[in-house]
Amino acid sequence: MRRALITGGAGFIGSNLADRLLADGVEVILYDDFRTGRRQFVGDAIANGARLVEGDVLDRWRLTGAMRGCDTVFHLQANADVRYGLDHPQRDIEQNLLTTSTVLEAMREANVERIAFSSTGSIYGEPEVVPTPEDCPIPVQTSLYGASKIAAEGLISSYSHGFGFTGVVFRFVSILGERYTHGHVLDFYRRLRDDPSRLLVLGDGQQRKSYLYVGDCVNGILAGLDSVEEGGFNVFNLGTDETVIVDESAAIIASHMGVEPELEHSGGARGWAGDSPLIHLDCSRIRATGWAPELTISEGIERTLAWFDDNTWVLSELPQ
Amino acid sequence: MRRALITGGAGFIGSNLADRLLADGVEVILYDDFRTGRRQFVGDAIANGARLVEGDVLDRWRLTGAMRGCDTVFHLQANADVRYGLDHPQRDIEQNLLTTSTVLEAMREANVERIAFSSTGSIYGEPEVVPTPEDCPIPVQTSLYGASKIAAEGLISSYSHGFGFTGVVFRFVSILGERYTHGHVLDFYRRLRDDPSRLLVLGDGQQRKSYLYVGDCVNGILAGLDSVEEGGFNVFNLGTDETVIVDESAAIIASHMGVEPELEHSGGARGWAGDSPLIHLDCSRIRATGWAPELTISEGIERTLAWFDDNTWVLSELPQ
Repeated sequence: MRRALITGGAGFIGSNLADRLLADGVEVILYDDFRTGRRQFVGDAIANGARLVEGDVLDRWRLTGAMRGCDTVFHLQANADVRYGLDHPQRDIEQNLLTTSTVLEAMREANVERIAFSSTGSIYGEPEVVPTPEDCPIPVQTSLYGASKIAAEGLISSYSHGFGFTGVVFRFVSILGERYTHGHVLDFYRRLRDDPSRLLVLGDGQQRKSYLYVGDCVNGILAGLDSVEEGGFNVFNLGTDETVIVDESAAIIASHMGVEPELEHSGGARGWAGDSPLIHLDCSRIRATGWAPELTISEGIERTLAWFDDNTWVLSELPQ
Repeated sequence: MRRALITGGAGFIGSNLADRLLADGVEVILYDDFRTGRRQFVGDAIANGARLVEGDVLDRWRLTGAMRGCDTVFHLQANADVRYGLDHPQRDIEQNLLTTSTVLEAMREANVERIAFSSTGSIYGEPEVVPTPEDCPIPVQTSLYGASKIAAEGLISSYSHGFGFTGVVFRFVSILGERYTHGHVLDFYRRLRDDPSRLLVLGDGQQRKSYLYVGDCVNGILAGLDSVEEGGFNVFNLGTDETVIVDESAAIIASHMGVEPELEHSGGARGWAGDSPLIHLDCSRIRATGWAPELTISEGIERTLAWFDDNTWVLSELPQ
């Protein structure tokens, strides 16, 4: 890899990926409209030579211009708001699917032929097979987020097939670590600072989740990309073999903060419509590349909490 | 069913479905923009009481108004042009996916809660399991048509899950019969009328396909719809247990026309990029409802040819 563009380059995963690529000597173009990306996250990258292009991914001409000369696009821009999909059903379609279509058309125009894409374990809905392998039975989509992401995968796959693109899709579990600004670890931390005596957990708290540390996620993306043949389409689950239940992660957070809240549960197997009671991916395919996560889930949560302690500005922002 | 709206109501399958619903005493609203639908196809239906609303499915307000008071939407409007997807990649996204999104939003607005959707066996790409069941491993999309259709399925599924819609998806093999105006049976017939001495077949002629007669298709849609529980999401393959190779269907057509062309082959396992060398669906799920096709593939082709003989106007139209 010589030169790469990252959509969502100022986001949580994008900015961590940028720092890593720059350290590896890759020229990096950060493409972001700062709708959810943050300028604080790209200060280091820009100081280290990354070029920032401010723009909307749906602005096809701007995006095309920005990616000229690149050999790889990391398409990480997304609406990552899984929970509120039903409140604005068009948003997932626009922000996850039409943006992917625009990225693919821009790639054709700019002659960029390799794309890595951040998909999600949510595409498995409520899987019958757990841990869930990449080639499980066609799942029923239970969230617009998952539906928009598997739809985007299909576009990438048909472009790979039809235009000879190299398409590499990564289905992530929840990612956490430095610059994590979205999700229940932040939500719990924020609420326990406000009121350490009690914590309301959506669902029954028994929803089983898997979390991957962002540094391990970035390593996994690069390991997957290195392992595939040119011109093909490949899918990798990216997660850990571990899981925790939501109540356990609440306990880790409370312990880190030195508080002893009473846990209250809203009840039901799902935190919200479309929440999956069990996300646990079979990651043997990405592990066959030699990759393995370096941090456990607890260690990943601890790193995230330590980052919150040092970056309390994130707590004063509105929940996304 | 009391009152139903059919998108693509003036199309091949939509107009056949309309005639059947009217015969069953259902109030029918035909929604079509006549981009590919034909006025000749809805003359009978309108004479029998169907209401025609001319409009683009993407015109959400018009569509919403048209479906008020309906209990069921048959969403059959589509870009059915599988072969030329790569020439205009945005068309499948707009005409198959964004239209489906619009239909779903219109249904929410108009309080219509049941949707039957025409998907396709093309979503299986080049399946590893043949005959292919509905719950085969997540397939790799090899055409934009298939990618846009499985994406639309995902939207319907997430709306069913999130909003309590009843969603019923039918993955069709190729459908033929009266009012068939698109595909290789017409193409072969047209070319053999022009030059009965030779016929160029794309690919090696050994691509194995399954065809279903449109009357059987309509029966299958209604059987599937009747069999499902309210508020769920269901998928049915809709095809036959038979297959023919492309060269065989060419022979049936030539024999019907009384000509003996020399078959020439463009070569390769696929007629075009994204063509599937083998579409053969496992239809045991729809058969479990009691439905079975009444016509064989040869009989279906013969009916189609007889309709061409009586409707030669279709030959003078530009190939779609």
